[in-house]
Amino acid sequence: MKKHRRHSGQSRGTNQNILFGQQPVHEALRAGRRVINRVFLLNGRSDANQMRNIETLANAARIPIEQVESEWMERQCDGGNHQGVAADVAGFPYSSMDEILAAARKAEEDPFVLFLDHIQDPQNLGAVLRVACCAGAHGVVIPSDRAAGVTPAASRASAGGAEHVRVACVTNLVQTIRTYKDAGGWIYGLDSREGAVPYTETDLKGPVGVVVGSEGVGLGRLVGETCDGLMRLPMSGVLDSLNAATAAAIATYEVLRQRALPKS
Amino acid sequence: MKKHRRHSGQSRGTNQNILFGQQPVHEALRAGRRVINRVFLLNGRSDANQMRNIETLANAARIPIEQVESEWMERQCDGGNHQGVAADVAGFPYSSMDEILAAARKAEEDPFVLFLDHIQDPQNLGAVLRVACCAGAHGVVIPSDRAAGVTPAASRASAGGAEHVRVACVTNLVQTIRTYKDAGGWIYGLDSREGAVPYTETDLKGPVGVVVGSEGVGLGRLVGETCDGLMRLPMSGVLDSLNAATAAAIATYEVLRQRALPKS
Repeated sequence: MKKHRRHSGQSRGTNQNILFGQQPVHEALRAGRRVINRVFLLNGRSDANQMRNIETLANAARIPIEQVESEWMERQCDGGNHQGVAADVAGFPYSSMDEILAAARKAEEDPFVLFLDHIQDPQNLGAVLRVACCAGAHGVVIPSDRAAGVTPAASRASAGGAEHVRVACVTNLVQTIRTYKDAGGWIYGLDSREGAVPYTETDLKGPVGVVVGSEGVGLGRLVGETCDGLMRLPMSGVLDSLNAATAAAIATYEVLRQRALPKS
Repeated sequence: MKKHRRHSGQSRGTNQNILFGQQPVHEALRAGRRVINRVFLLNGRSDANQMRNIETLANAARIPIEQVESEWMERQCDGGNHQGVAADVAGFPYSSMDEILAAARKAEEDPFVLFLDHIQDPQNLGAVLRVACCAGAHGVVIPSDRAAGVTPAASRASAGGAEHVRVACVTNLVQTIRTYKDAGGWIYGLDSREGAVPYTETDLKGPVGVVVGSEGVGLGRLVGETCDGLMRLPMSGVLDSLNAATAAAIATYEVLRQRALPKS
């Protein structure tokens, strides 16, 4: 391991390339999908268990490790809680919709895809990616414009789950949904408007796509019209909406619940 | 409305007493539960719809409104996104466990209570309170020590939902759970350990309490032993845990789903 003291004038890249925190860096190494140029460890913090795991994984992948000083680390991580670990990473390795569907075929499962209709907040995107990872969704589709991308901040918010999930970033969300419908997918949009069916009464067992609207705005008009059906979560009345990522989590686990039922 | 320009030397209280953001302040006024000493509106922002609602509600409740300058507002709100609105509030109006159970009786429903076993993060607490509000849980119980309380930050994270939910803050969580069991409640802890039953196979229709463990640590030993059963959410394998608030949301909506089923 090369020891090197960073000075304030040196910079290895913008924060967009710096993934930090033990869990996100550990999951990025474990997933092995993303180009990691270098791992930074805070001097004197290599005692913790996960730190040793990170060192072992980085060494196995022949990724250079550098010991750095606290001041440098904090500047690179914008004062965030880096827990002594950061990594200089290439952009997120997006998948295609075809790869998402191929993964479902390979697993011999009906595809389950989440479509995010312009989620703005990297925290919400990260939360959805963590749920998608835990629930074993085959993939998540996000639009390339006017939406949060899988930045290091989103990966962090996903507790590293983003590193394992297939995410397709598409220029035309409606067109991608239509293509999936043509391939046999049934599309249900989460929406509280009148006429929406309770989500537990929606059949989510076959090839399915769940569309989650953006914070504040909800489903776009054209996206809503492209859905095969709209489904709503029950609300007791005082507040009328859940956080977008929370709603996505509840719907995702409903898909799992229905799929685990005995076939009728 | 009194117009008043705040100067930098003046301070109306610490940030612990300042609730800010349109939705949290609006919900606090709408709920009418909490002492609100004063509402602050940013000069020149009284055009928006929700701002007018806030003015109307504050006037109806005879709460003084002050127009303040941007600099003062930002200092009071610690640079947070105040959206032109803040309020000087008294502490959160906690309920007792008796009041929670009385609310269930009054609604002629089996009580549904969430117990939070030392949730640390006000964002997670807020997220749980928002879900509890949307789902119509009768109350949430938190311990008074070593846990996040319902601060303005938590209320904000709940999108104002905290203002409508009964929250009991107790010195001894295990004792409160035992008392609820003696009164007929069945207690299920969210836990991924071996022997835990899938949450969808747990009967949550009667008087029920769901216990949510803290971030990182999960359920405390004694709390876990006090539960009638442990229930787990299915995990696909790569990541082995959801965010505490997300897990709480999924379990909460499972309670609603089971309760809406025809009685067998």
